[in-house]
Order: sequence, then structure tokens, then C-alpha cells
Amino acid sequence: MTIIDIIRKKRDGAPLSDAEIQGFVAGVTEGTIADYQAAALLMAICIRGMDARETATLTEAMVHSGIRLDLSRFGDRAVDKHSTGGVGDKTSIIIAPAAAACGAIVPMMSGRGLGHTGGTLDKLESIPGFRTALAVDEMLQVLDATGCALIGQTRRIAPADRVLYSLRDVTATVESLPLICASIMSKKIAEGVRGLVLDVKTGRGAVLRDVAEARALARVMVDTGTRDGLRTEALITRMDVPLGRAVGNALEVVECLEVLHGGGPEDLVDLSELLAARMLVLAGVTASEDDARTRVRAVLKDGRALSTLRRTVAAQGGDPRVVDDPSLLPVASKTHSITATRDGYVSELHADSLGRASSLLGAGRVRVDDTIDPAAGIMLWRKPGEPVRAGDAVLELHYNDGARLAEADVLAREAIVIADEPPPHVSNVIDRITAA
Amino acid sequence: MTIIDIIRKKRDGAPLSDAEIQGFVAGVTEGTIADYQAAALLMAICIRGMDARETATLTEAMVHSGIRLDLSRFGDRAVDKHSTGGVGDKTSIIIAPAAAACGAIVPMMSGRGLGHTGGTLDKLESIPGFRTALAVDEMLQVLDATGCALIGQTRRIAPADRVLYSLRDVTATVESLPLICASIMSKKIAEGVRGLVLDVKTGRGAVLRDVAEARALARVMVDTGTRDGLRTEALITRMDVPLGRAVGNALEVVECLEVLHGGGPEDLVDLSELLAARMLVLAGVTASEDDARTRVRAVLKDGRALSTLRRTVAAQGGDPRVVDDPSLLPVASKTHSITATRDGYVSELHADSLGRASSLLGAGRVRVDDTIDPAAGIMLWRKPGEPVRAGDAVLELHYNDGARLAEADVLAREAIVIADEPPPHVSNVIDRITAA
Repeated sequence: MTIIDIIRKKRDGAPLSDAEIQGFVAGVTEGTIADYQAAALLMAICIRGMDARETATLTEAMVHSGIRLDLSRFGDRAVDKHSTGGVGDKTSIIIAPAAAACGAIVPMMSGRGLGHTGGTLDKLESIPGFRTALAVDEMLQVLDATGCALIGQTRRIAPADRVLYSLRDVTATVESLPLICASIMSKKIAEGVRGLVLDVKTGRGAVLRDVAEARALARVMVDTGTRDGLRTEALITRMDVPLGRAVGNALEVVECLEVLHGGGPEDLVDLSELLAARMLVLAGVTASEDDARTRVRAVLKDGRALSTLRRTVAAQGGDPRVVDDPSLLPVASKTHSITATRDGYVSELHADSLGRASSLLGAGRVRVDDTIDPAAGIMLWRKPGEPVRAGDAVLELHYNDGARLAEADVLAREAIVIADEPPPHVSNVIDRITAA
Repeated sequence: MTIIDIIRKKRDGAPLSDAEIQGFVAGVTEGTIADYQAAALLMAICIRGMDARETATLTEAMVHSGIRLDLSRFGDRAVDKHSTGGVGDKTSIIIAPAAAACGAIVPMMSGRGLGHTGGTLDKLESIPGFRTALAVDEMLQVLDATGCALIGQTRRIAPADRVLYSLRDVTATVESLPLICASIMSKKIAEGVRGLVLDVKTGRGAVLRDVAEARALARVMVDTGTRDGLRTEALITRMDVPLGRAVGNALEVVECLEVLHGGGPEDLVDLSELLAARMLVLAGVTASEDDARTRVRAVLKDGRALSTLRRTVAAQGGDPRVVDDPSLLPVASKTHSITATRDGYVSELHADSLGRASSLLGAGRVRVDDTIDPAAGIMLWRKPGEPVRAGDAVLELHYNDGARLAEADVLAREAIVIADEPPPHVSNVIDRITAA
């Protein structure tokens, strides 16, 4: 079988054999398969799909394209969380130290933002001096010292994913369940953890808007992780409105510190507690979710989670004083308020538009090589369900460079819906998916 | 719309607008669209298809990527024929001079063989000195002098097709009706003819095996040509058995010369007469197919078609004595007979296997940059319907380099089916498709 035969087979809708998938991933990693051939096969996979066996094989082949970390000395305690991405989705910075403070080991590898969704790495890098590009040995030292590392993907983890991901981004082949699954799960499996909680976002601010698609992705990721001996479960959560009140890198870090000081917005606290509690259950810290949640609450209230983050920031070269004095983080020189046009209740705040507006202010990337402004972003002074009067500030845009302020302003205004009655209260957690 | 948006749209099955298709072809021609993006879109088109309007727009955009020849001084007389490709499919070399000898003007641009199918250019280049790479001015001089030119595609005709074709070949996106249609029809429209007869082959030796697919391709090509003001019609013809008795470049030229001397195998003569007659009808030489056929027969019998070919060969730098003395063509140093294993009637001679066997002997290319041996090929001493006795030679393999003879021998043996009774006689012409 040549690569052309493999492409033809998937083009015609047939399942690929394990050897064909392994040959493809090896060829991509070694550079013997041309970009245009990989792109053609990615498109064929995108349209024709892959069954559970093919998806698992693709994931494992991508794991084997690089190294797999050995965290066996931590046993079941090594766990992680992954979110499929949203707006204001900052839970990692809260739950990694919280779960570690409760006894889990969290080697969290995160990504950068692209498009309207933010990236944990960008948020962390708003902390002066904080280094996310650690070598494997350094990361293990941080884990030993603090129980929690917050780093970027190393070049040695799933290198095939780096090649394929950069191609997918420019060939409209991002939105494919088997390709998303293999990209996420290969990195998590290679990371060496024993348990993984997936936060699969759905709604207008998520990569997958449709809840049925989110469920299908959660199912294939849970099944793929389980096949590979990783205890995997998923929450399907709503991403129609940004999580918390802050969107933008330093603004989100400030909000995380509020939560780690025992405060913060209810929706963010609630989801963070649940995700961290599920990590503790998978880590074997306790069998009861209620007990786990009580433990997480305790470390958020008594400063132990904050203390873990302080030590991790220091261990990764960041200024640990930031943790206690958020004013040391970058602050935008200008703000611009967007006010309610009428009395009523905020009923919607469109996460996709606000994510895009925040990007335009400098918080995100429109292209992969754009530099970002850590201080830029948007504060949400009113969230859905809250009453407003005409003239009240609903949003506050933070920026240094106003070149695209007018565009951001239009998007932000369009994102606000005000109604006569408050919207019905809905839980952010739509469903849970566990191993079959 | 960026190219990524265009790819996404077709990926999701939506029709592309004229502007999107034009932007894609312009970007491919100018090199501003990356190969991997073009490959992803080609795969999406291959799987999702294109409607009649999209196909026509794609074809026209490919025409506009280069020059369009001005043959207006020949009026309706400028006509051409195109075959979708087969094994032993050598009619061009007969009908171009035959139609020209009857008053048509035939600026025939042909391609090279790839895979198991042969290419007219390769066949012509077995004539010592014959040049197929003529500039446009040279071609027009040959047309003026002889009424018939036999050349390759110039770089200035449909350059977008060259880029897309080379990508399709290595990304398993060859077998797509809209892409095949646009590739063929853009070149023929740019060639400047007023009438076109398509020979759409179907069966095991054709690119499209399935007759329904061949019909669908013929329909879309006829409609696309007609939309563009080109009088277009198609024959659907059988390609289960090689046409004539010769497969291989010089061997096929010898067989064409036999036909042009008034002889030759019945199936080849029959199809050549019909195709040439349809060209004369489209050229307005006569309105009656019967009359046209009578005229074609006459120029094949009385040497006028041969005389036209002689002048064209001379005008294109070839040795005109070849036309009267085929022994001046390359001859293989070795032959190898394959004999009947039993008494009976030949019932099948699989064109695909024989095409592949001929390629292995040196007559064709396995890769685009392979050099070919003009003398290599296969003679079919028995064709389906003819009686054989055990030990009679059915096939004769001609070769100089025997490196892959064993492989060719296996394929050739497998190609022969002998039965107790002769197969029912079937016409090679399955259907005719005309403008709706």
C-alpha cells in the first residue's frame, strides 16, 4: 500500500487498517509523506470519519511518534484535566493547584489560544518571568517539589500532532471528531497520567456548537483513553456565555487568584470544584465525589491551593509575589465601557463574539504568529440573569492598542441581549460521560 | 472568503460560488494557494461533488488561466476528438489525418500515458524525429499546411490544469467527474475548436469502469462544452478488450498505418470511421453521418488520409518515409509468446492486465518520470470470438529489457479467458450522448 492507495481507500469510505494508519503517522513524522498528501487524507478523514478502532489506532500511533513520560512513581495519583476550549475558560489555573493541594499530581500541559478561544499558556505568561517551556527533567522536578506543573507541550511529546495540527488549521480540517480526539488524547496519553477528566464544551463559544457532536466527541475520547488504560471521563458543559467575569489573559489570572483566595464568581467556582473533585476521585484520593468536593472547597478557602500555585510559579521562574498582589500583573492603559441600552435583565452574552472582540483588543491571535497583549480583554460587569438599567456598564473593554477598538466595540454590543424577564437558570453541566 | 473558508464550504457539501471557484483557480495558477490547501479542496470536491454550474465555472476559470487559441479563420471546420483513455486506443493517429483529408481542420492536442493506459504523444514519438512540443505559431503553420497537427499541450494552454493534474495524481483525486470534466474540457475549449467528439471509455481497461459513471461524465462534459459554445457530443464505448491487435507505442503506429493503407483490424477501423464521421458532421462538411462515413472510408482506401499524415509527420520534423515503410520504426529485440492452454474460443482478453503487462515491458510509465521503450508492447494474435487450439500463440510480448518479463508474463496469462463457445458479438459503441 502506497500513501496514494491509503488516501484512495479513505476517500471511498473504507476503514483503514492499523498498518495503514501507523504508516501514515510514521511518514508524517519522518517527513516522507508530502504535506499535500497528508492534507488530502485529513480531508478524507474529516468527511468520511473513522470508527472507534481506527481512532484508537491513530491516537496510539501519534503517542508513539514521540516519547511517553514515565510517571509511574506517582501511581494513580498522576491525573490531568483537558478542556476543548472556550471563552473565559480559566479553570486549569485553579484546579491544577487545588487538586495538587489535595494530594493529586498534576503535570498539566496546555496550549495557546487561537481564534476566539483563549489558551492557558497565554494566561500564565502574563505572570512576569513565568516559563512554560520546561524540559522534561525540569517538569519532573517541579512536580516533585509542588505536585503541579503548568507547562506547554514539549517537542518530544506527540510530534506527529504538531505537523498534523498545523496542517489542519490551514486546510479546514479542524472540526473532525477522530482528528480532535487523536490530537488531544495522544498528548494526554504521552504525558503519562493515569486519570483524565475531559471538559467538553458545547454552545456558541465552543469549537463544537452542537451538543450531540460534543457528546459524540466525549464518547470517542473516553473510549479511546479507556482502551489505552487511562481512566477517562468527560463532562459536557455549556459555553454560550464566557465562564466567570473576566476574558483576557492577565484579567483571567486575577480572577483565578480571587477563587484561590476563597472568592470569585459562582459559575467559575462551581465548575472548578466539580472538575477538581473528579480528578481527586480518579487519583484515588477519595472514592466519594462529595468528599472530594469538600476537600477542594477547603483548600480553596484555607489558602493551601494558593500556596501550591505560589510554589509552582516560583519553581517555573515566575514572580511569586503576583499570587498575593495581582496589581503586579500587566494592566491596560485604557478602558471603554459598553452600557445597557434599556432596563431589564441580561439574558445572553454571546461568548463567540466576546472572544473575538477580546482578540481584536490584543488578547488573542488572529494568526498563529501574532503577538498578544497580556493586559487586553473584557470584564463582564453583568452576567445573564442579572438586572440592568439603561446606562449601566455591562462590559468594560481593556486595551492598550485601540487600532481595532471600533470593530471590537461593534462585536461586543452585538453580544449583549437584554430581556424583560431573567432567563431560566440552567446548570453549566449538561451531562457526564464515563467508560462504557 | 479566504481559501480556508472555501475549503470548509465544500467540505460541508455546499456549492461554491463563481467568485470562489475563480479565486481558487487564480490562486493555484499564481501560486498563492499552497499545494496542501489545493489538495484538501480537491479531496472535498472529489467526495462532495460539484453541480453543473460549478463544473462549468471551474472549466471556464481553467480556460482563462491561460491563452485561448484563435482558430476563427477556420470557422466551424476546426474540430477535435478526445478519448478518456484505454488500452490499444490509437484512433487519434487515424482519424486526425482522415478527418483533415475530408476537409476538417484538426489541431489535436494529446497527452502521455500513465498507469495502464497509453498516450498518443508517446505513440507519435516512436516516429524518428517527430516533434510534439510545438509553439503555437508552429502549430498554426502545420494546420495551414496539412489541416492536421498532432501535438502536446503547450504551457500556455490551461496552466491551472497542469498544477491541479499533477496534484490529483499523487493525492488520489483523479477519479472525480467534475475534475475530469474541467481538466479535459478546459484544454479543448482553450484549443479554439468549434466542435468536439468525446470517446468516453467504460469497462475494465478504462479510467471509469462503470457504464453509469461513464454516462454521467459524458453528460457533464457535453453540457459543459455546449454551455461554452462548443458543439460537443460523446460516444460511450466499450474498453474491456484492447482496441485492435497492437498494444505499445511503435506497434500501435504500425497498426494505424495499416488502417491508413486501407486494412487493419475491424474493431479499430469501425470505431475510427465513426469518430471521424462525427467530426465531419460537427465540422459542417456534411450533415449526414452515412455520407460522412462514406467519405472517411474513401480517404482511408485511396491513400489521401495517409498522404495527410505523411505531410504532418514531415511538417513536425519526423521521418516521412516511416509512413510507407513501418520497418523504420523501433523494433524490439526479443519476443515471448503466450499460448492457449486448451482448445476453445477466446472469450475475454482483460485490457487492464494487458495494459499493465505492456507497461512492465517498457511501453508505459509506472511513475511520471519513467522513460519508455517505444518498441515494447504486446500483439494480440487472437481476439475474443476467435477459435484457438491448445498451444496456439494468443499473445506475443515484445521487449528489449526483460527485467520485469516474469511479472508481465503472469499478468498476460491471467488476462486470457478461453471458453467452449464464442462470446456473443457486442458493438463497441454502447450509447451516444448529445446536447440536451
